[in-house]
Amino acid sequence: MADVQGFLFPRTSTGASSLLPPPPWHYSGAMLTLEYRTDPAAVAELLPDPLEPADDDPGAVAVIWADWQSCSDSYEELLDPVRSQYLEAFVVARCKYRGEHYSRCLYIWVDRDYAMVRGHHQGYPKKLGSIHLTRPVTVGKAGPRLEPGGRFGATLSASGRRLVDAAFTITDECDHAGFVNALPMLHHRWMPAIESDGSDSLVELVTMSGYDAEIGRGFTGDFDLSLFDSPIEELTRLQPREPIAGYWREVAVSWNGGTTLERRVIDGV
Amino acid sequence: MADVQGFLFPRTSTGASSLLPPPPWHYSGAMLTLEYRTDPAAVAELLPDPLEPADDDPGAVAVIWADWQSCSDSYEELLDPVRSQYLEAFVVARCKYRGEHYSRCLYIWVDRDYAMVRGHHQGYPKKLGSIHLTRPVTVGKAGPRLEPGGRFGATLSASGRRLVDAAFTITDECDHAGFVNALPMLHHRWMPAIESDGSDSLVELVTMSGYDAEIGRGFTGDFDLSLFDSPIEELTRLQPREPIAGYWREVAVSWNGGTTLERRVIDGV
Amino acid sequence: MADVQGFLFPRTSTGASSLLPPPPWHYSGAMLTLEYRTDPAAVAELLPDPLEPADDDPGAVAVIWADWQSCSDSYEELLDPVRSQYLEAFVVARCKYRGEHYSRCLYIWVDRDYAMVRGHHQGYPKKLGSIHLTRPVTVGKAGPRLEPGGRFGATLSASGRRLVDAAFTITDECDHAGFVNALPMLHHRWMPAIESDGSDSLVELVTMSGYDAEIGRGFTGDFDLSLFDSPIEELTRLQPREPIAGYWREVAVSWNGGTTLERRVIDGV
Amino acid sequence: MADVQGFLFPRTSTGASSLLPPPPWHYSGAMLTLEYRTDPAAVAELLPDPLEPADDDPGAVAVIWADWQSCSDSYEELLDPVRSQYLEAFVVARCKYRGEHYSRCLYIWVDRDYAMVRGHHQGYPKKLGSIHLTRPVTVGKAGPRLEPGGRFGATLSASGRRLVDAAFTITDECDHAGFVNALPMLHHRWMPAIESDGSDSLVELVTMSGYDAEIGRGFTGDFDLSLFDSPIEELTRLQPREPIAGYWREVAVSWNGGTTLERRVIDGV
Repeated sequence: MADVQGFLFPRTSTGASSLLPPPPWHYSGAMLTLEYRTDPAAVAELLPDPLEPADDDPGAVAVIWADWQSCSDSYEELLDPVRSQYLEAFVVARCKYRGEHYSRCLYIWVDRDYAMVRGHHQGYPKKLGSIHLTRPVTVGKAGPRLEPGGRFGATLSASGRRLVDAAFTITDECDHAGFVNALPMLHHRWMPAIESDGSDSLVELVTMSGYDAEIGRGFTGDFDLSLFDSPIEELTRLQPREPIAGYWREVAVSWNGGTTLERRVIDGV
Repeated sequence: MADVQGFLFPRTSTGASSLLPPPPWHYSGAMLTLEYRTDPAAVAELLPDPLEPADDDPGAVAVIWADWQSCSDSYEELLDPVRSQYLEAFVVARCKYRGEHYSRCLYIWVDRDYAMVRGHHQGYPKKLGSIHLTRPVTVGKAGPRLEPGGRFGATLSASGRRLVDAAFTITDECDHAGFVNALPMLHHRWMPAIESDGSDSLVELVTMSGYDAEIGRGFTGDFDLSLFDSPIEELTRLQPREPIAGYWREVAVSWNGGTTLERRVIDGV
Repeated sequence: MADVQGFLFPRTSTGASSLLPPPPWHYSGAMLTLEYRTDPAAVAELLPDPLEPADDDPGAVAVIWADWQSCSDSYEELLDPVRSQYLEAFVVARCKYRGEHYSRCLYIWVDRDYAMVRGHHQGYPKKLGSIHLTRPVTVGKAGPRLEPGGRFGATLSASGRRLVDAAFTITDECDHAGFVNALPMLHHRWMPAIESDGSDSLVELVTMSGYDAEIGRGFTGDFDLSLFDSPIEELTRLQPREPIAGYWREVAVSWNGGTTLERRVIDGV
Repeated sequence: MADVQGFLFPRTSTGASSLLPPPPWHYSGAMLTLEYRTDPAAVAELLPDPLEPADDDPGAVAVIWADWQSCSDSYEELLDPVRSQYLEAFVVARCKYRGEHYSRCLYIWVDRDYAMVRGHHQGYPKKLGSIHLTRPVTVGKAGPRLEPGGRFGATLSASGRRLVDAAFTITDECDHAGFVNALPMLHHRWMPAIESDGSDSLVELVTMSGYDAEIGRGFTGDFDLSLFDSPIEELTRLQPREPIAGYWREVAVSWNGGTTLERRVIDGV
């Protein structure tokens, strides 16, 4: 009778097959954050009870691209970069829970399996997508410099359909990346019961923050953003009414777990 | 305060964004099953307590390729086949639990996000992979006929590494597909706690079977099978000692949930 | 000083690295052909001098999906199906040259490198795309039967944008697949000079037909077709004015070269 | 009768569909160059007559990874990065022709269609592959810094098989990137005749260099390199006997055509 190991499935006698290595996980990369205001009702309808809209500016959302390398404490993923490099694009809003404000990921796409399922562990509702973000360069003509006038494209496609097109132009240096994605995350972790009768086996409300965050060069700027329809997506319900600001910055963070705020207890069998 | 809907995340006011449509799910396709005997200890080490090895032939395993179309009761996925077509490759063994024998998926790879996460719901430890299986043809020279002598290739790669190569040759018609993958499935559904401290929030032992199974043409035959190493896989611990038999058949099934056998109750917060 | 070998580059001492094995090449698969009439001027503008529009029905075009296995005379690709399976989607019109009528591929997308470059050899202007075509099934609910009422979806995306959506419904058996793609092909083979000054090193007008064509089950039916914009595609210039008919059939063919009709002689250096 | 336009196929009335925009093309990125010595005979067998091995160090080869953004003079590709970002991995040796020494690409893989066919135009024998190269970071733990001790992984897979694994460690700053890939390129441009009878329609020997090269930060270091077998590749014929040195650097260049050195004249039809 075996004692199987592994942070995630498949669990084996050694743990080596686990789709995820055990945390802590370390991330280094670049993020493009585009903040705008949409109809507050379009945000509110995505906040399940008992979450409430943010007190101030409840229609503020951020569409974010992140171009990551990540690794475990073994650092071995960095030498096999198919296991460390990925991109993700996601939509964040704020919400209120028990009087505190949080950030919350509404939609998210990523391009590797480990990053997708790591997100599921963290309550991010990740799907696979094709995500692109222009990289700054230091030489030549084929890319922006990190200075005013530098222009970046950012795109998202899934299931063969373009979902988001954006262009960002640096106007100034900036020491922050906006307010929408700046709070601890508040996520649901849901897993339907295997009975598949509409009930859930796992219903948790969790919160988490990274640690050892390190910020590199940062900039603000203007942007254009277009959202497109798909039969299996609803991004166009979050149409921009008014831009707030865009931000590009280098960022690193480590992650080693969060906190369960609520867990619905389901009887054992 | 919203009432969000959707079988799976992301849950929204309409449910349209859910990575999975609600079951029932219908599958039609072809399966290649290659049964062989490995060291029984290599199977036993993958069966967590209280699972036990099968009484008879405990080293029997099956490596299986499936070339599927699947859809929900809306059938709309069939007209947007990026949402219905996928391949998977997996390894199955048998085990015993409370005196009953079951089939159990040890390892599995698939090539679409919805199929990956649908598997996680069902306790299949799915990763993404690149999976290929020769298709039979009715005309011309570029494929086997469904008759003795027909040859099929079957391959699996993940993270840019070839993991399995196989070749199967039909010898006879056959009305079954072996005994290893023929029982109800017995799977664990595991989700680590967000605290990520080694504890699990979801620990369920579940069983499931399809319904309305329909079998088309079926054949048995001989095969060659090679398993390869990877730093993040352990297939080579299941090296073949002796082939049993190979099977190719057309198969369809529907699925509408399983049964929770055990659930470890975790206190609410 | 070496004698390098190989049908195509890279050429080596053994020829084993060639992106293409030497012909003949054998193809077996299924094709969906959707014929319709567009503005004849939209076809004419794609026929370079001295090609002329077809005498009859010069606005007739066909959008075609093909789901192939292909192999060389070694047949070894069939046992490593990543080297034999691919899909393509393409647009064909007819034209007239020196009093004879031909079929001509206007646009085409494919999903494997060898199939892309094999097309370039044959004068097909292939790009990479993501192509899907519903497969018929013999059992279960997740796919159409090859009989009246059977419905198929067919889609094309490239560079993350959906370019074509189609749905086809079988109405009757049928022993042909229309008239647009039924003639010998007339293609240009163009390669710009390395000087990249607007001149071409290779300008050939070639024609080709397969041999040993074999036709399996065939059907006709109705269809819906939608073409979408992209900054680097021009399919929407070929908007349907009137459907002609759709066809699905099993087909196989072999190919072992074509005939050069015109070659512009460029002086040696 | 139309006047079709476009640098490459498909040529249309506007030129907008061309798989390649017209040059000049601008490139900015990072390159990792690993130089080593192999059996000089393994290089010589890849140099078709009248090319000869280099006079000095004829067994020196370089395996190179490049992580590019590229664009045309319109710069519009930079805002739709699926059209500008790609990676390539390639093997270069030196050769002698008419008394002059050149660099020559022996094998190359790339991950986008436009980059693949642009290479074919330039005489690079490009196939599609899956290519990864660790990126340096400025913050956090998930990547190397551009300083001694910084470690980079570099991998290549094609057709689901790992072909190359490498690890590079920076030891010092360096103002060059070795000598193997430092000369003008000497390439063949081959296109078999459509008759596919073993004859070629296009046989050109061409040379080319970029212009406006700009070099950013550069480093040298040590490396490990492993080459793996595949039924359709021959990299293992170039096994390392002795490392020379590794180099990482930021680099940009523009390209606007080359020079035809020899063209075999084929009679018109």
